This record gives sequence, structure tokens and C-alpha cells, in this order.
Amino acid sequence: MIDVLTMGRVGVDVYPLQVGVSLREVETFGKYLGGSPTNVAVAAARLGRSSAVITRTGADPFGLFIHDALGEYGVDDRYVAAVPDLPTPVTFCEIRPPDDFPIFFYRHPKAPDLEISPDELDLEAIAGTRLFWATVTGLSQEPSRAAHFAAWRARGRMPYTVLDLDYRPMFWPGLAEAHDQVRAALGQVTVAVGNIDEVEVATGTRKPHQAARALLDAGVELAIVKQGGDGVLGMTSEETVEVPPVPVEVVNGLGAGDAFGGALCHGLLEGWSLEDTLRFANAAGAIVAGRLACAPAMPTADEVRDMLGAEAPGRTKGGER
Amino acid sequence: MIDVLTMGRVGVDVYPLQVGVSLREVETFGKYLGGSPTNVAVAAARLGRSSAVITRTGADPFGLFIHDALGEYGVDDRYVAAVPDLPTPVTFCEIRPPDDFPIFFYRHPKAPDLEISPDELDLEAIAGTRLFWATVTGLSQEPSRAAHFAAWRARGRMPYTVLDLDYRPMFWPGLAEAHDQVRAALGQVTVAVGNIDEVEVATGTRKPHQAARALLDAGVELAIVKQGGDGVLGMTSEETVEVPPVPVEVVNGLGAGDAFGGALCHGLLEGWSLEDTLRFANAAGAIVAGRLACAPAMPTADEVRDMLGAEAPGRTKGGER
Repeated sequence: MIDVLTMGRVGVDVYPLQVGVSLREVETFGKYLGGSPTNVAVAAARLGRSSAVITRTGADPFGLFIHDALGEYGVDDRYVAAVPDLPTPVTFCEIRPPDDFPIFFYRHPKAPDLEISPDELDLEAIAGTRLFWATVTGLSQEPSRAAHFAAWRARGRMPYTVLDLDYRPMFWPGLAEAHDQVRAALGQVTVAVGNIDEVEVATGTRKPHQAARALLDAGVELAIVKQGGDGVLGMTSEETVEVPPVPVEVVNGLGAGDAFGGALCHGLLEGWSLEDTLRFANAAGAIVAGRLACAPAMPTADEVRDMLGAEAPGRTKGGER
Repeated sequence: MIDVLTMGRVGVDVYPLQVGVSLREVETFGKYLGGSPTNVAVAAARLGRSSAVITRTGADPFGLFIHDALGEYGVDDRYVAAVPDLPTPVTFCEIRPPDDFPIFFYRHPKAPDLEISPDELDLEAIAGTRLFWATVTGLSQEPSRAAHFAAWRARGRMPYTVLDLDYRPMFWPGLAEAHDQVRAALGQVTVAVGNIDEVEVATGTRKPHQAARALLDAGVELAIVKQGGDGVLGMTSEETVEVPPVPVEVVNGLGAGDAFGGALCHGLLEGWSLEDTLRFANAAGAIVAGRLACAPAMPTADEVRDMLGAEAPGRTKGGER
């Protein structure tokens, strides 16, 4: 059985080897595995969970690299297939700390990961995984959208079924369509997680508590609102938890959200309290924000515990794998 | 007055810093100016000609880089504008000498350089340049296609009006449409240059002499067929010239054709004999094939003369700028 099964975006991150400059000035690039739900699977694997990702590459050398990289990170690639005639997407970024990390996607004419179709899914594996993670981007085009709803039907709202509210305007014809799709999806999942911009798309409000309550009202059992410098809010019908941000000198903000996601999966599966889980996830995100790389920077459980010190869930309660 | 005015493709070449491996294995990349007619303008500038390129970038940092790079190479960028909402194309390649240099274009949803429209052209400059260079790729989509024919109308088949038969199947819906467009274009230009694959698209034959004659019959005054290891054939109504290849240990075959093109422009404008011109262009191409880079590798006239030794046009006749 797979602990964490994610579904959606993959690509090659072609990221600058020079920091603090624009793509106008950058001279050289490194090549990394990328794509949010793929990085979540990497982050979970790094924390000791068995993980896999359901995605699609182009039938090209970059696609083969994705398999190689997944293997190196210990992520099962059995649900990664190639789509003919579509290039593996590449993503450029600028690394301009502390707070400017623009992303440039090359996902046309269509990203292979949006070609995941319902009849290709291993519904038994999807129903059988302990935690199923998908993102709003996967709802932006068919047949991927239908595949997501088919996967959720197979889950039958079984915990943990997580929706990352990941919203990127360039993937959508307009905000209204994104909003409608998120609303439909919220009824199919048990956990929703997003930043302020993303919960606004889902709920229409930027007020964290109001947004979290709206997410619960829409059907989830746990709503998590990431507020950057204001910390993280977690809400269930029974408790509301707010944890402060972990201070970090930001090198590259990209990937921090995925590190948070992988750690969230880990905390949920460990059965930690909501507060411990969010503290742990926050620290994992901070560690990656303080590092240049994304996928290669995902921390181990020991690294997260070291950052948390006395507050680490592993220290106070054990149970770490 | 501009000596050499080219029109068409531009992009950012994101080329491997490791040689002999696929994109699966490559670890780092360099960033270079790219796009065939742009490289021809660079090659001509390197040989001392004044040159400019008519093209379009995205409204993004890579587009600004293209302006910077043109400036560094001494190519006038006054006809380079940005198209909103389309990314500057990027191109990856594999450098697998001696003869395998696959290219991976990211030019979707549409390349800005195919958005050049007839009403944006400086027809006075196009009519006034000593040599106007365009490529078949510019005919693959509207409004670029109409812009090319408008430019040629402004030229009125004035020498030198060069068509690079540059054919890349992925830019076309099918061979038949490419063939039709090339045929229509051949009546508008005075020089046609291409390799065996490209002259076959234009003429239906891979036999160099037969193809050259067919190009003359279609309306050009000078037909040039590049035969790789078999050298180059040049044909006018008055003479047929064959020059042998220049032996070179190939490092990266990409860009050699554009070096040949820039040197061809130079030889024509110098008024050299056809044989001298083709020898010089052949040597320029060989120099770039023996170097890793493309645009940054374009040789000076002295470098070409050094390779040619006693056979250099500059040695026997002078006239080099």
C-alpha cells in the first residue's frame, strides 16, 4: 500500500544558477524535477513515507529524466506514462530573494499531465492509498478534470483526501471557471490547503478564519490557510489552531509550499495533533525556503526536528518512522 | 543603409554545458541568442557588415535578453518588438558529435516571430538594404507569411534577396503546404540556399544539380545546395561551381548553416566570385561546427581567412572590409 499518492503537474524546472538576477541576466541554469504534486510526493518520500505520483510526461528525453529523478528521490513512477506529440513542460524562474520568485511556464500546446484520462486510472490504488493528494490545476482542462472527479469517486471522501488549492491564473480561462471547479471539488475531499490568494478563489474571502469556515462548510473536515509571514491557520469542526511562522532567511520561496504539503501528509499519517502537524509542516517549508533548490532541498524528518528543537513532535511524542 | 537585413525566427537557445549526453542526463545549461535568421545577422555583423533583424519576442525577461545580446553582437535591434501574451520561445538541443544534434523547440502556443504583420514593416528599409534575408519558416503561419510577401513586393526582386530554404517539419501542418509556399516564394527572390532535405521540399528532388536547375527555373538567379560532407554546389545561368567541404572535427553542427549564411551575405556584397564566396562560406560554417556555441562562435573574417590559407578571397583579391 502506498502512503501518499499524488496526482497532477510535473515538469522540468530549468532554474537559474545565479541568484538575485532576472532571466535577462542569468547565464546558466540547472535542471531539476518540478511540478507541485510531484514535489509533494518527493517531500513525503524524504520524510520516510512510501509515495507515488500519477502524471504524464512528453515522449522525449526530458520525460525520461523525470523517471530517473523520481527513482532517485524514492518516488514510485509506475503511474507516470508518456503522451505522444506533447513536449515535457519546462519551467523557468527568477530567484530574487526575499520575496520575488516569478515563474515562467512553458506548458503549451498542452501539458501532458492534463491528458490524464479517467479510464487510465488505477482506481484500486487510488482507493487504497492512505492519503490521496490532488491540486486545483488538475481541474483546469479535460480529460484531467474528469480523471480527478473519477479518482475522488473511488475515494468516497475517505480520509485523507487532500485538495491543494494551488491556483495559477495562466492555467485558466478565467477566475469564474476556476471558482466553480474548486467548489465542485471541495465536496469530494476531506482536507483543503491553500494560501490567502487560493482560499479567496475557493471562498471569495481573504479573511483566514472566515475562509477556513467556508471551506469546512463546503465539505472538508480540515481547512488549512497558509498566511506566509502571519503563520498558518488550521481549522476543523472541533478546533482552531494557529501556529506562528518559522523565521528563516529566504533564499528561494519556490518549493516551500510543497515541502509544507509533504510534511502535512506525514503529520496526518503519523496521527499527530493538528498543532504538531502544522508546526512540523511550517518548519519543513521554512527549511526549503532557506535553500536554493526545490525537489533536491526537501528535508528529512531529522532536519525538521532539528529546526523545531524542543517543539518537535518527534521529540515529545515519538512515532516518527 | 543596412548591409544585411534578416527577418524571422528568434529565441533563447538553452544549450547543454555537457557534450555527448542526452537531455535526460544533462545537468546544466547555458543561455544564448538563437534563431536562424537572427544568427545570420550576427554572423554578418561579425564579418564587419552592418546588420539588423526584423523579429518579435515575448514581453518578458528573455525578450529583453534578446535585445541585450543583439547589442553585444553589433546587430541593430530597431526592428525587434515585443508581442504581448506570447512567451519568448526557448530551444533546447543535445550536442552529440559528430552528427547527432536534435533540437527541441518550445514555440507554443505561437512564436512571437510569426506575429510579424505586413503593416508593421519598414518597407523603405527593406527596399533599401543591400541584402534581404528571409527563411521558409517565416511562411509557416499568418500574419508572418503575408509580411514576407509584402517585404518581397517592396524589394521587387532586387538583388540580393535571399531565401533560406530552412525547413523544419514541426512548424508545418504538412509537407504539401510547405512545398506550395516555397514555390510561391521562389518567384520573389534572387538567391535560394538550402541543404538536400530542404531543396527536396522546394523541388521534389534530392539530386543536387537537378535541384539547383529547378530552383533557377523557379525564378532565382543563384541556387546554392549544401551537401554536407560532399561540399557545396552553386549554380547560376552562367556557371556551376562545386567546392569541397572543409575538413573539421565537428563539436556542434548547430549554427554552422547560419555561419555559412552570414558569410554568403558577406561574399555576395564584396562582389567576390561565386567560387570564392562559397569557399569562404564553407570555411565559416566549418569553424562554427568545430565550436560548441552558435551565435557566440561566429567567426571574424580573419579567422575564416586563417582557415582558408592561400585560398582565402581576402588574400588573393583584397576587398575585405
